[in-house]
Amino acid sequence: MYDVVIIGKGPAGAQAGIYLGRAGFKTLIVYKDGGSLSKTDFIENYYGYAEAISAEKLLNEGILQAKRFNVDFIEDEIVMLQTDEENKVLVKGLKKDYTASYAIIAAGMTRKSLNVPGLKDFEGRGISYCVTCDGFFFRNRKVAIIGYTKFAEHELNDLLMFTKQAFLITNGKELEFDASVYKEVTVIDKPIASIYGEDTIKGISFKDGSNEDFDGIFVAYGTADASSFCVKSGIATEKSRIIVDENLMTNIDRIYAAGDCIGSYMQVAAAVADGAIAARSVTERLKADRKTARKKD
Amino acid sequence: MYDVVIIGKGPAGAQAGIYLGRAGFKTLIVYKDGGSLSKTDFIENYYGYAEAISAEKLLNEGILQAKRFNVDFIEDEIVMLQTDEENKVLVKGLKKDYTASYAIIAAGMTRKSLNVPGLKDFEGRGISYCVTCDGFFFRNRKVAIIGYTKFAEHELNDLLMFTKQAFLITNGKELEFDASVYKEVTVIDKPIASIYGEDTIKGISFKDGSNEDFDGIFVAYGTADASSFCVKSGIATEKSRIIVDENLMTNIDRIYAAGDCIGSYMQVAAAVADGAIAARSVTERLKADRKTARKKD
Repeated sequence: MYDVVIIGKGPAGAQAGIYLGRAGFKTLIVYKDGGSLSKTDFIENYYGYAEAISAEKLLNEGILQAKRFNVDFIEDEIVMLQTDEENKVLVKGLKKDYTASYAIIAAGMTRKSLNVPGLKDFEGRGISYCVTCDGFFFRNRKVAIIGYTKFAEHELNDLLMFTKQAFLITNGKELEFDASVYKEVTVIDKPIASIYGEDTIKGISFKDGSNEDFDGIFVAYGTADASSFCVKSGIATEKSRIIVDENLMTNIDRIYAAGDCIGSYMQVAAAVADGAIAARSVTERLKADRKTARKKD
Repeated sequence: MYDVVIIGKGPAGAQAGIYLGRAGFKTLIVYKDGGSLSKTDFIENYYGYAEAISAEKLLNEGILQAKRFNVDFIEDEIVMLQTDEENKVLVKGLKKDYTASYAIIAAGMTRKSLNVPGLKDFEGRGISYCVTCDGFFFRNRKVAIIGYTKFAEHELNDLLMFTKQAFLITNGKELEFDASVYKEVTVIDKPIASIYGEDTIKGISFKDGSNEDFDGIFVAYGTADASSFCVKSGIATEKSRIIVDENLMTNIDRIYAAGDCIGSYMQVAAAVADGAIAARSVTERLKADRKTARKKD
């Protein structure tokens, strides 16, 4: 029986664990994988590191930091959360069930991607999902954005801050915005056959047999999908984001959420604030619970 | 002429500078001092450092990080901000005036303190202003909270997570909450004469000539006061916090604010999120300005 179970070991989950463990609460982090950070090479825009830090190292530092405050870690995949009449949260995993007074969902966001041969192979090796995060690495290089929606336009605008050699690859889809205003941008509206490269990406092959070389590719294709266990658990979502109040509580009492899964700005700097605030909210609740128990004595 | 002038070099200001500099915008940080961080010894609850980091080192890392993205730093004290008809923000300093398209106020919060001999001398050496931040360093030690308001009760509740040897020093003020429910807490309602110690604090002398030794002292006396330049500049505040919208813009167009000065959770983790979000808002504005200029071409 834990005071708090946190789902996710990324920046939001670990930051919440650091606060709760340090405050003396029995805290468990259940994680499936390293989430978005583990698909990233380097982070250089998170405050506090003068030089770029590898995403793997940052993830690891956060885990060690939480462990230093006695936070437990268990690898498992969560399928459902339930609350009972005794004010407990039951967190059902594929391996085991976990019981706690409160839960914080910090499960990140699965970013919907293209199903194109080669794409997965080059994630973090020339393929990125965030121009704000990685555009800087491709200054004045030849870069493609794969996408056709307003979201792709947003990423294109960001990209033009870094390079004028920008290509928009629609994969045969009809553009949902007017690209003609971006005179320096080349639009390629052919369907993609595959992405090729060696250690890093080299370019895109199209279904008509043609190729185009690139130094980098940003995928801005569609939007992210919901954490399916939220739907199963009756946790309200909107556009695949978990709905929370100002204390980061979901529609279900005692269940909180933080980070990418609530639609925060998908940056480490934003995730840690969510983690800190969710931990503060849960701490206030646990203190109130203890004050009530104190009065009963 | 800068794209953005940021006031404050703490976590919120530097984080905003890191994003803006990295995005290629001409950015200046004007600072008076290191703010709250420079009054702190060690930080161990900010995500990303497995071991405690000295606050001075963290502050310095953030500054070097911003400088790596070509952010300029100037030491000056800001007295007023003005916007003109040409969509410029004039930032008036004691030494110089600075002009930019946008400004971000990340000036932190002056924490109102006692005027007691010895107090300033031992800041960061046994005297702290935040139990959430530093309570952990005083586990099972003998600790005093100086205060009498609801804020002092809040800090007392936090402190009881760490130690049962807790004293509440009212400095002769009448308590604004019922302390009797905290049976383990000793209330001392005598006025304070001074704080004594050697390298670190040792205790409190009272005006009646008595002494009490302590391992640590938390000051939770009253609340923080307003940044006077906001009042002068017509920037709306409430309870000495700058009022901002969801994009962190103040009531004055082109002037944004972030961090402790907008009443965020006074933690590095929260300040950096504000910095990132303010930078994103200003980035969107600058991009829109350029798109408008592009259409005029």
